[in-house]
Amino acid sequence: MTVKQPDYIASLAPYVPGKPIETVAREYGLDPEKIVKLASNENPLGPPEKVTEVLREKIKDIHYYPDGGAYYLREKVASKFNLDPDWIIFGNGSCEIIEYCAKALLDYGEHSIFSEYSFAMYKIATLASNHGYKEIPAKDYRHDLDAFLKAIDDKTKIIYIANPNNPTSTMIKGEELDRFVEKVPDSVLIVLDEAYYEFVDNPDYPDSMKYIKDWRKDNVLILRTFSKIYGLAGLRVGYGFGNPDLIQKIEKVRSPFNLNLLAQEACIAALDCEDHVLKSKEHVKKEKACVVPEIEKMGLRVLAEEGNFIAVDTGKDVEEVFHNMQKKGVIVRPLKGGYNMPTWFRMSFGLREHDEMFLNALKEVLT
Amino acid sequence: MTVKQPDYIASLAPYVPGKPIETVAREYGLDPEKIVKLASNENPLGPPEKVTEVLREKIKDIHYYPDGGAYYLREKVASKFNLDPDWIIFGNGSCEIIEYCAKALLDYGEHSIFSEYSFAMYKIATLASNHGYKEIPAKDYRHDLDAFLKAIDDKTKIIYIANPNNPTSTMIKGEELDRFVEKVPDSVLIVLDEAYYEFVDNPDYPDSMKYIKDWRKDNVLILRTFSKIYGLAGLRVGYGFGNPDLIQKIEKVRSPFNLNLLAQEACIAALDCEDHVLKSKEHVKKEKACVVPEIEKMGLRVLAEEGNFIAVDTGKDVEEVFHNMQKKGVIVRPLKGGYNMPTWFRMSFGLREHDEMFLNALKEVLT
Repeated sequence: MTVKQPDYIASLAPYVPGKPIETVAREYGLDPEKIVKLASNENPLGPPEKVTEVLREKIKDIHYYPDGGAYYLREKVASKFNLDPDWIIFGNGSCEIIEYCAKALLDYGEHSIFSEYSFAMYKIATLASNHGYKEIPAKDYRHDLDAFLKAIDDKTKIIYIANPNNPTSTMIKGEELDRFVEKVPDSVLIVLDEAYYEFVDNPDYPDSMKYIKDWRKDNVLILRTFSKIYGLAGLRVGYGFGNPDLIQKIEKVRSPFNLNLLAQEACIAALDCEDHVLKSKEHVKKEKACVVPEIEKMGLRVLAEEGNFIAVDTGKDVEEVFHNMQKKGVIVRPLKGGYNMPTWFRMSFGLREHDEMFLNALKEVLT
Repeated sequence: MTVKQPDYIASLAPYVPGKPIETVAREYGLDPEKIVKLASNENPLGPPEKVTEVLREKIKDIHYYPDGGAYYLREKVASKFNLDPDWIIFGNGSCEIIEYCAKALLDYGEHSIFSEYSFAMYKIATLASNHGYKEIPAKDYRHDLDAFLKAIDDKTKIIYIANPNNPTSTMIKGEELDRFVEKVPDSVLIVLDEAYYEFVDNPDYPDSMKYIKDWRKDNVLILRTFSKIYGLAGLRVGYGFGNPDLIQKIEKVRSPFNLNLLAQEACIAALDCEDHVLKSKEHVKKEKACVVPEIEKMGLRVLAEEGNFIAVDTGKDVEEVFHNMQKKGVIVRPLKGGYNMPTWFRMSFGLREHDEMFLNALKEVLT
């Protein structure tokens, strides 16, 4: 006899993260200094200088538990976004908030809805809470919101939407999302995952804050993160905005000390670093303008709408391409397993020299 | 209409953490520099010097995602405890592993078992996974393992045991725990929460590693933490040892990046700081010898068996005592709410001057 596990847990397939530099160095016998990681949409400019200064001071306090309520960070985010503090929830990465939504809201027999080729955690979070899902077929790699609407029934509890979408970079326009949010029943939570929001430079991008502030929708949760443009992926802080009633419901399942102490201090400092945000955005824009045409010249299809990453169709088994690129010290993210895009990979932009290394490696591997 | 929540989630009462110094300073209008926090069993000596040095170097890397598999930390813990790496699981605090056990293992109709006056998260984790529990009445604040055995039935899936027990400091002896572990069916997981293990200086303390290493029990999980003696509570790292089959089952529900990047680096360095562990242990021993007799002289009952904390029965409504001590800048943990010990508080040991402040405040408040 052994300790048995419910079948729905036993059958879970874990999220497959981008490979750390050290792992690839070990596996391929390479010098870690010569490896470039473009697999996890990280900020190649690193964290803001001011954040690293603040952290150096705060290290002496790490024997204290973090503030479970994240008081000062909450105040700061509230003031930046002109919200009351109780409109905000924090997670150990926005990934954790995605999991909290499933755990806190899905009831027996209910399901979530998300798009094909969208962020893998929506499905994992739903299944881990022992609930069903409807995966809506994408329309040429885009969210098909009309099909979402048709799929809603009285057992629908959560709709997860990534905008721009990871990993396909596609953007839903404001007009389209407005119509959608109007039509979704108030009993269905719409999670708008805007992890890449700060990178978007498109006047048609939705102003999602109006759904909660002006339309007073209490079934909309907006997710943002410090992992991407703020360069703090290693510290794990995501946050969400929504009506206090909704926030309280999700808070019910939050672990008491989910946000670590240095993370809270780092984010408080990061919110003052708008220059770093702008610089990071400009850098991505410039690199995208250099890299995308080069890939297209190779005759490959590229999805490069919004965000600090693109998806590339290699036209062949991407695992092989991935493996061969790693041998050359370039780590991208193959989209075969979790995303069912067997010939595609995703890459985010590095420094100029990293992206050159990437382009050279891709050319060599594909020819 | 609004987004509805399952009743079992809506009725959850959250864990009440110790108050951060900054919170008490705000609420009571005090200078944070003059407040002493003895509410969360933190290490008053702070983190090891070597850890702070390593962190200062690693801050530059916080724009990278952490290694989801915690490769280097895993290797280091494995080597220290002479285990293979796949016998180890890590959590964002051991608290998270307590939650993972409930989520990964409890099936429909099953329950967990834990003691009255034991760590509050066992109940919270069970309820949050929509399962029942049996709370076994304590015997003069101690675990009553015979009653545990009688409570086990074919719907029992998890037994949570804290040893030494938080918040009562009581220790289960090796002989008694050996007999218990032998008798518990192999289909029931025994979680041995040893968060305060390094502080114990008692030859009768169980050698729990033998259950998994020598007895080859695959229904025992041993929990340890970097939050207490290692002085890293702010970084959130707990870990567990168990048979790889068991570990794999629990890993199914682990979030991909639950351990942050600086936490992993800090713990790797901390494992080399045995001097800090010894110094911290000696410090607690010395303070306990000073503080406990002073409280007993006041005619109060003190539970002071093992660990870096004690429980004190004030004989009156502890909320009032708590409030009055906070006015004097001393934060302890009242055990009224979550622990149903309405006249008791828990305190951990600070530096000499902190403990003097505590004793003075207690005397003034109670007389």
